[in-house]
Amino acid sequence: MKSYREELWFETTTRRAYMNITAQVDAVVRKSGVREGMVLVNAMHITASVYINDDEAGLLHDYDSFLERLAPRDAAYRHNDTGEDNGDAHIKRQVMGREVVVAITEGKLDFGPWEQIFYGEFDGRRRKRVLVKVIGE
Amino acid sequence: MKSYREELWFETTTRRAYMNITAQVDAVVRKSGVREGMVLVNAMHITASVYINDDEAGLLHDYDSFLERLAPRDAAYRHNDTGEDNGDAHIKRQVMGREVVVAITEGKLDFGPWEQIFYGEFDGRRRKRVLVKVIGE
Amino acid sequence: MKSYREELWFETTTRRAYMNITAQVDAVVRKSGVREGMVLVNAMHITASVYINDDEAGLLHDYDSFLERLAPRDAAYRHNDTGEDNGDAHIKRQVMGREVVVAITEGKLDFGPWEQIFYGEFDGRRRKRVLVKVIGE
Repeated sequence: MKSYREELWFETTTRRAYMNITAQVDAVVRKSGVREGMVLVNAMHITASVYINDDEAGLLHDYDSFLERLAPRDAAYRHNDTGEDNGDAHIKRQVMGREVVVAITEGKLDFGPWEQIFYGEFDGRRRKRVLVKVIGE
Repeated sequence: MKSYREELWFETTTRRAYMNITAQVDAVVRKSGVREGMVLVNAMHITASVYINDDEAGLLHDYDSFLERLAPRDAAYRHNDTGEDNGDAHIKRQVMGREVVVAITEGKLDFGPWEQIFYGEFDGRRRKRVLVKVIGE
Repeated sequence: MKSYREELWFETTTRRAYMNITAQVDAVVRKSGVREGMVLVNAMHITASVYINDDEAGLLHDYDSFLERLAPRDAAYRHNDTGEDNGDAHIKRQVMGREVVVAITEGKLDFGPWEQIFYGEFDGRRRKRVLVKVIGE
């Protein structure tokens, strides 16, 4: 069994952001040399998500509105009593998920026609990481 | 390490539907010959989910009501400005999740007493796919 | 390829509870002898979650309030017509997720600085299980 690991670093210019990272993950899979296996892609921070959906600007706006409605930035959070101001971001990340696992078949991400991997940032403007771990052979 | 891949195809007669696909996944695991490993089961489309929960009609109704309350079909979505009418479906899928990973132990799905794998369709009435990828040995 | 499996048992004293189980999962990974691979940690029951986030009391309170607002215990659920009283718990678990997959690198959970694995219980006061399955080499 082969395994390979790489970190992707991001620093968004806005507090919340949705970035298509499919090309970066694909590059890691190719570097790994794995032809059949799985790749785990997860946020290493707890106020960010990795998820799979469409790369369409209207949809990204809809996700953002939906999440802000579910967990508004300016609502009261006990977590913010610690001096943090990101209680909303911990909830938004939980709704969108921490990680995706994608099949690797014949050396490539085994995707349907519209699947794209996104990094969802809910408390940005600082350097944060995504882990890409490949196993297989 | 062994690996095996199969696609399951579905075409629901209603826009939204919840189908128990445990038997189909189990059949793929048996065909794979893997005795110890993991199976990834994921929607290959971005308006559908694969999730694990109980096969009970009342619960399926509760999930559907909950999702329709969170992201009503007839609300305004920017995504629908593209000519699509499935903005709600992209959000519903995100809440229910894209994928499950299930352990394989002694050649079988390593499940608790009530775990069943479901395909959740939020924009159906056309042919769509689920990927089953098995790795292990 | 190596594989290893262990069950963790919990019985909470309250209906809902959030328990940090990172140390138990870490112990299973060490016992497995796997240096490079992945570990799947999933609730084996359908009214409980395994998720990754911060171990901070205020945040756990925020999650609980958020989930109770989304799916109140005392709302009407068709599932409860079966004689159950845990319709809310099936929804809460779905929002928080069933499972996490964590990379194993150099024999350890490959985590960012604040990642902790939690067992989220939404219908407790009875013995329930979490599955830890390790694969790799």
